[in-house]
Amino acid sequence: MDLTGIQVAVLGGDDRELILIPELVKMGARVRVVGFPQRPELAGAQLVDTLEEALIGAQAVVMPMPGTDDKGNIRAVYSEKKLELTEKLIRRLPPQTTVIIGVARSFLKEWAVKYRLNLIEIAEMDHIAILNSIPSAEGAIQIAMENVPITIHGSQSWVLGFGRVGKTLARMLQGLGAFTTVCARNPADLARIWEMGYRGITFDQMSEKIEKADIIFNTVPAMVLNKEVLLKCSPEVVIVDLASQPGGTDFEWADKLGIKAILAPGLPGKVAPKTAGKILAQVVPDLIVEGVRQKLERHTISEAT
Amino acid sequence: MDLTGIQVAVLGGDDRELILIPELVKMGARVRVVGFPQRPELAGAQLVDTLEEALIGAQAVVMPMPGTDDKGNIRAVYSEKKLELTEKLIRRLPPQTTVIIGVARSFLKEWAVKYRLNLIEIAEMDHIAILNSIPSAEGAIQIAMENVPITIHGSQSWVLGFGRVGKTLARMLQGLGAFTTVCARNPADLARIWEMGYRGITFDQMSEKIEKADIIFNTVPAMVLNKEVLLKCSPEVVIVDLASQPGGTDFEWADKLGIKAILAPGLPGKVAPKTAGKILAQVVPDLIVEGVRQKLERHTISEAT
Amino acid sequence: MDLTGIQVAVLGGDDRELILIPELVKMGARVRVVGFPQRPELAGAQLVDTLEEALIGAQAVVMPMPGTDDKGNIRAVYSEKKLELTEKLIRRLPPQTTVIIGVARSFLKEWAVKYRLNLIEIAEMDHIAILNSIPSAEGAIQIAMENVPITIHGSQSWVLGFGRVGKTLARMLQGLGAFTTVCARNPADLARIWEMGYRGITFDQMSEKIEKADIIFNTVPAMVLNKEVLLKCSPEVVIVDLASQPGGTDFEWADKLGIKAILAPGLPGKVAPKTAGKILAQVVPDLIVEGVRQKLERHTISEAT
Amino acid sequence: MDLTGIQVAVLGGDDRELILIPELVKMGARVRVVGFPQRPELAGAQLVDTLEEALIGAQAVVMPMPGTDDKGNIRAVYSEKKLELTEKLIRRLPPQTTVIIGVARSFLKEWAVKYRLNLIEIAEMDHIAILNSIPSAEGAIQIAMENVPITIHGSQSWVLGFGRVGKTLARMLQGLGAFTTVCARNPADLARIWEMGYRGITFDQMSEKIEKADIIFNTVPAMVLNKEVLLKCSPEVVIVDLASQPGGTDFEWADKLGIKAILAPGLPGKVAPKTAGKILAQVVPDLIVEGVRQKLERHTISEAT
Repeated sequence: MDLTGIQVAVLGGDDRELILIPELVKMGARVRVVGFPQRPELAGAQLVDTLEEALIGAQAVVMPMPGTDDKGNIRAVYSEKKLELTEKLIRRLPPQTTVIIGVARSFLKEWAVKYRLNLIEIAEMDHIAILNSIPSAEGAIQIAMENVPITIHGSQSWVLGFGRVGKTLARMLQGLGAFTTVCARNPADLARIWEMGYRGITFDQMSEKIEKADIIFNTVPAMVLNKEVLLKCSPEVVIVDLASQPGGTDFEWADKLGIKAILAPGLPGKVAPKTAGKILAQVVPDLIVEGVRQKLERHTISEAT
Repeated sequence: MDLTGIQVAVLGGDDRELILIPELVKMGARVRVVGFPQRPELAGAQLVDTLEEALIGAQAVVMPMPGTDDKGNIRAVYSEKKLELTEKLIRRLPPQTTVIIGVARSFLKEWAVKYRLNLIEIAEMDHIAILNSIPSAEGAIQIAMENVPITIHGSQSWVLGFGRVGKTLARMLQGLGAFTTVCARNPADLARIWEMGYRGITFDQMSEKIEKADIIFNTVPAMVLNKEVLLKCSPEVVIVDLASQPGGTDFEWADKLGIKAILAPGLPGKVAPKTAGKILAQVVPDLIVEGVRQKLERHTISEAT
Repeated sequence: MDLTGIQVAVLGGDDRELILIPELVKMGARVRVVGFPQRPELAGAQLVDTLEEALIGAQAVVMPMPGTDDKGNIRAVYSEKKLELTEKLIRRLPPQTTVIIGVARSFLKEWAVKYRLNLIEIAEMDHIAILNSIPSAEGAIQIAMENVPITIHGSQSWVLGFGRVGKTLARMLQGLGAFTTVCARNPADLARIWEMGYRGITFDQMSEKIEKADIIFNTVPAMVLNKEVLLKCSPEVVIVDLASQPGGTDFEWADKLGIKAILAPGLPGKVAPKTAGKILAQVVPDLIVEGVRQKLERHTISEAT
Repeated sequence: MDLTGIQVAVLGGDDRELILIPELVKMGARVRVVGFPQRPELAGAQLVDTLEEALIGAQAVVMPMPGTDDKGNIRAVYSEKKLELTEKLIRRLPPQTTVIIGVARSFLKEWAVKYRLNLIEIAEMDHIAILNSIPSAEGAIQIAMENVPITIHGSQSWVLGFGRVGKTLARMLQGLGAFTTVCARNPADLARIWEMGYRGITFDQMSEKIEKADIIFNTVPAMVLNKEVLLKCSPEVVIVDLASQPGGTDFEWADKLGIKAILAPGLPGKVAPKTAGKILAQVVPDLIVEGVRQKLERHTISEAT
């Protein structure tokens, strides 16, 4: 991938960006970075102090996977200063500028429409989400290992949901030697679950059989581990909830019942920042090039007409 | 599942129906069968000689997975007589009658519209296709074993396509110990292929690397193994083509190049009729009950209005 | 298993004994325990304060997997007092008394000979060591997960040695999705490694190729990761050394080279005490019964003669 | 491996020798072959008509894996003439000549002692037997696939014995998706079976539970599937017996009970001759070199003394 001469602004981030930025530099991009101290990895990038400076001349803007909080502060673990994304900043970007972010809050989506930016939310892009399911699943297994007094091998491990993370988790749990049960809704998923050698059950059957579970991994972003279900669980069960906040567990009830339940969002950046950074480095440059190319084309077309 | 009192006609078929029919009988259905001789499995069903007789009073009609040929002859491996499905027969069925078949030819689809039948093609229903991918994949592996002088273990095995059959095949090949390469088009599939531990390549890269392949399993219903690609293959490669007829291989060119290429459609009924019959027995009763229920509802509604 | 009426002394231990003791009680043994506070799990056992008291009338003595330190202090994580095993105590035991321990120091072995005790070291019994390899391997993987910034999936993971722990580790690493290399000495092991789908290399080839390793798990109780080999490793490699103390790594040199190397002995009791306790509960009662039976027989024989 | 100048006699064989011989030639050996017609693979070897001619000047003699029948006829599938190995021929070989054979009959062993030959039986050498277990296991699976109307996936598959072939078979069956039960005698094997995720049972428990088995693979060379056990089996079970002749099944009783039982010895050469030939090509040259070297040493020593 060749980014020669393309001006990229990287706004905030964490260890993943320490992998991504050198890749961008290596591909020839001119990179301005805000939210990081001097570090050997960042040699070749230009470190600046403010979002304003970072955005000067930017043809593409890269923000972190977790994006911003609801006040617009960009996640930036290495920055002592807040990096607040404001409409004022955004509207200075030329139309069609590519803005890459993991997940965008609604205000950012609105601004993108208003100022005709090419906003790309990558966390939900299918191939990125699948690649990220690997560190997520491993992180979940690590958390389980740290919190149960038994081995995963030989345990009754349940996976709720057979989406991108559920598929990866089930395969890894079985690979370690767990008796793996997967809850899923649709018959096609249950057929695949059978093919892959897991025990498949529907959510309807879940509460009947969940008492045998030693570990439950939830990936469903809906209240599936509610009071009724928790009452059926063994008090020694450990729940690892991977669904995006607020998770799919009634944590209050879990607490009352003495059930250990751990909400674990955003695992890739925490447990395997280097792998997660490589995923970004594999995906972001393509999106930048494509974005710049499209902008150019539109520009040419509009000039021609 | 309770089919008590429902009249079902089973028209033709093979060993799979020898599993399905006793299940229907056990669930309480009155079953009329044409195209089979007396056999212990069929005790409890009424064997008749003609399609006309079989269809008398039928609330649901079951035809085989392979359906009919293009002249309307229903596949019936145990029948010496032809069972020709004609418009005359079809139009006698009351509207909304459920007709279950694997794959329907276009004339049958037209008649179904014309006479308002509830035609259900099950071969392409997702969960059935996934369940059937298991005997398909095993049958393909058996064919490969019978035709290569090497073990699957340690072989360079390629799977073209990562759909329902491709996923099952890749998993089984790896389970036996093959070095498994999967060709797929979209990035999400390639991400999943990586997660599952296979080597993933795009169809663009295929011809560059295919010369190392010992065995190629094709699941793509398009001419992917064309002359250009075959010219890159080792003359000792063995091709097992699972795509529905005419397959995805240029068989003429394979022949010219001395490459063994085997077209292997319809494996489930051939290699594991009992498993394939159990899949039908697991799925067809539901469809019958649902069909009869819907017909009843419409009837009630139309009477009410 | 029926232990009715057998007097058992449990001397020290950790969470594993909290699983074992209730099992012994449930099987009918009269159990005297030293080195534990009052706990609900221990209801039914008699808690005493000193080794002397614990040993009164004991027909079988159970000591922990790690045994004693070289001064004779029995490992007892729940005891504030030291539990020192002395010759004075040992010689009071009647000849042929069964003494079960994980690993015995040389002084204990000598006393056992001197006083004709039936000393059984279980840590090296083949089936126990294999069962214990499961928590060991999982613990090693957990340590790796906690110490590398990448996922196990997709990593170059090396296992040195293909014994009881090596076999389990390699299978689990592959199950997670690592590219798994196993170093072994003998051709039969290398043949099995090939059959199981790992890359096998001899120790001779090791240093040539080890630079690609991301994680190295050592199970060989000999200095295999010496200065020469470490010099070939990537500075980012992480070593998890499972070999019994002092391990198989030159830790000083690892430190000089900035290589993270972790000595991790005794994992089963730490990472999965409940699983490890169940292994004891599965094995120890048999040994007690067998020991008591043999003693009885000898006694009968000697009386008869 | 360098065999330059070494004279090797290859006596009979099958497709495996068609792989082995070119390798020996490529390594520089002078090879005389008896029992094969002209074939392109054999270019570079000297084809002769009699054992006498083949043995002229031979420093190493290679006979096939199945060796001879009990009358001394060497297995030679491509030869119309019998190749009878006689004492007369053997005694002409200089002392210490290396004679490599799969399995030697007792008369050959006696002659080897009498004439001080370096007789090497390779079929039972551990690493060769493990490598050969791969084509054996695949061949057994192929036979099962051809003889059962169900898929291996989802079947109750039993493996009797957890030796070299049993281990490979169990892993492959599980890889295909079978519910895999392994019968073994010793606790260490049962512990490993548990670790690998199979259901382990002892031979004592076997007859209680065997009625659920769909397919039984026997690897134990003793009458384990005797009348008593067969009476407990389902009449629909299929037995694939891999134990060396006469197998471990009471075939008469199986027949009386209508149970399909297939004795399948010598699979590697049949189902995957190329793989089996490569195993020979990987192993035999080493043995030749080592044998020639040892003979030379002894010679030198005896000359010196």
